Amino acid sequence: MKKITLLGSTGSIGTQALEVLDYLDEYEVLALAAGKNVRLLCAQIEKYRPKRVCIQKQEDVQLVKSKFPQVEVLWGLDGLMELCSDTQNDIILVATSGKIGLKPTLRAIENKINIALANKETLVMAGEIVMKKAKENNVKILPVDSEHSAILQCLSDKNNDPYKLIITASGGPFLNKTREEMGKSNALEALKHPRWHMGRKITIDSATLMNKGLEVIEAHYLFNMDYKDIKVVIHPQSLVHSFVEFIDGSMLAQVGFPSMHIPIQYALTYPKRHKGIKTDGFSLFGQTMTFEKPDLDKFRCLKMAYEAGLDGTSSLVVLNAANEVAVNNFLEGKIHFLDIEKTVEKALLEHNTIKNLTIDEILELDLETRKRYAK
Amino acid sequence: MKKITLLGSTGSIGTQALEVLDYLDEYEVLALAAGKNVRLLCAQIEKYRPKRVCIQKQEDVQLVKSKFPQVEVLWGLDGLMELCSDTQNDIILVATSGKIGLKPTLRAIENKINIALANKETLVMAGEIVMKKAKENNVKILPVDSEHSAILQCLSDKNNDPYKLIITASGGPFLNKTREEMGKSNALEALKHPRWHMGRKITIDSATLMNKGLEVIEAHYLFNMDYKDIKVVIHPQSLVHSFVEFIDGSMLAQVGFPSMHIPIQYALTYPKRHKGIKTDGFSLFGQTMTFEKPDLDKFRCLKMAYEAGLDGTSSLVVLNAANEVAVNNFLEGKIHFLDIEKTVEKALLEHNTIKNLTIDEILELDLETRKRYAK
Repeated sequence: MKKITLLGSTGSIGTQALEVLDYLDEYEVLALAAGKNVRLLCAQIEKYRPKRVCIQKQEDVQLVKSKFPQVEVLWGLDGLMELCSDTQNDIILVATSGKIGLKPTLRAIENKINIALANKETLVMAGEIVMKKAKENNVKILPVDSEHSAILQCLSDKNNDPYKLIITASGGPFLNKTREEMGKSNALEALKHPRWHMGRKITIDSATLMNKGLEVIEAHYLFNMDYKDIKVVIHPQSLVHSFVEFIDGSMLAQVGFPSMHIPIQYALTYPKRHKGIKTDGFSLFGQTMTFEKPDLDKFRCLKMAYEAGLDGTSSLVVLNAANEVAVNNFLEGKIHFLDIEKTVEKALLEHNTIKNLTIDEILELDLETRKRYAK
Repeated sequence: MKKITLLGSTGSIGTQALEVLDYLDEYEVLALAAGKNVRLLCAQIEKYRPKRVCIQKQEDVQLVKSKFPQVEVLWGLDGLMELCSDTQNDIILVATSGKIGLKPTLRAIENKINIALANKETLVMAGEIVMKKAKENNVKILPVDSEHSAILQCLSDKNNDPYKLIITASGGPFLNKTREEMGKSNALEALKHPRWHMGRKITIDSATLMNKGLEVIEAHYLFNMDYKDIKVVIHPQSLVHSFVEFIDGSMLAQVGFPSMHIPIQYALTYPKRHKGIKTDGFSLFGQTMTFEKPDLDKFRCLKMAYEAGLDGTSSLVVLNAANEVAVNNFLEGKIHFLDIEKTVEKALLEHNTIKNLTIDEILELDLETRKRYAK
């Protein structure tokens, strides 16, 4: 039996990961970590019988303990760090939202535990440090994002390196709107993603295409590719999850129904594939796939992500933090949709690049930026 | 330097293979074999300086000898057999048309020479024998067809077996015609292939979809897959060259400009990819790809190919031979377009299945069938 810990077990990826595990015989859930959804966590404890769990707040510890006296209940960042120190783990799924996953991920890597990574901030904020440590410790960082999973699948041929990566983007709800129309849209319209059901933050990031920008940055670190060799193509049907082009001009693509089950399962069973929850695939019959060039003048967040990537670590931290507070401001009705990109633009302009940041410096810069641009 | 012999060097695949070799440093042309196009063969000798050549007819030998006294000139089947006995070869490209390639291919396999296979008849008529011999001699049969090359590329992950193969078909010139319209069309209309420039026989096979049927049979032998797990999908744009579905429901696809250069080069450099004639790939921007279920009632040749495949060797020989003479009859204006499928249907009905044929029995049955259905 392989042993797994899930950080963020009650979130969108966490719950789907547990659905995937229901179809895999070889896994035992060692520990679960959740945020504030204690009720769902308790249901998960009931079903998966982990030895330890971790919750966000100390005040919820007693409630869980009273229901499950045999389960060790930890809390907060220290709790996550402790779960990631358990070398019994074969793999840890990092599906927490935001930067909370960063330090635990590094701890797991130091303990030579493979990582299934569903958290964008980890690589966007600290890709250089994380990938360096992973290499030193011979740890695999297995992407759970559908796009990066697609690339990993296309790269399963160990005889050939990639020449270019081509990340697909649905284009979000504003693909066919003008900038003027985008500017006038409210949170409700921006949250109507045509293809994927995801959390609120990532859905807004899909509307600005910042999500695709963050994925370009992740791909840069995960696959060690220059930014100039990572392209984005608009593919509204979300059936091709990404392409890899090789030196001979041939491309491989990974294709499938837009569901997170396949990429989650592939990360957990890598490099083998298993019969699982989605075994019957989907039918190609009647499908149409279109591919367009992204409009970088309309979707400036994507352009800024490339620029921040080329500029280096501190710009990436600022890009990510300013974007997150701007998205919050927008969701709370405090700013307009196009003010998201303006906030990020302003933050990048007001920032002076610093190279070679430590993890603590990264977290400090993140905090500073958030304070500065929050409304 | 790797040494290569090209059988069928003056044909469509042969000439494109030489274009590919122009971009590969590592290859030396050991020998060339052509049919009747002695003039082009002489130009190829001038450029590639092979030690030996082979031509179809004895009467042309003197002409080539007089121009190139230092080159050994062979002729006919015996000549091909001799070229395939030269164990200096690292690989032999079999791009002859028709059954003439069958015995030389087997000879090369016995001599443990890898095969780049662009000849359909070899596997359709004798797939079982050829693949068995290849396995015994640890010889690679590398497909040059774009569809089978696509599948091979999608299968470069050695950790996972295919679950289903999905072969793409452009649908040919009659995709959007009714059976009545098809029945009335002449050779000129049937030869107007929308996507690929190929020889006359294969272009008519594309119009009847028999070509796709033959590819299903080839895929069965090349990849050791049951017929029920090999699907055909109509994809008029010919940008996806085939798909492989895996047990987890994920699919890989190989994508690229419809050109034979990539599959030819991949067969020659396998498993590595090389910078080559088509390095810059093609742009996805502005592309549309559609996928439809093939209509087996309209394209009965495809259905018969599946049925013959399930029935076994002798039915495949009859299918192939009856189809070839019927296509000839059609091209010579002797029968109507829909008579091609009727001829094949009649031949299969009038035939009694025989299992475990030898190569000589296969060739005899082929000859008998041709005599019987030629006009």
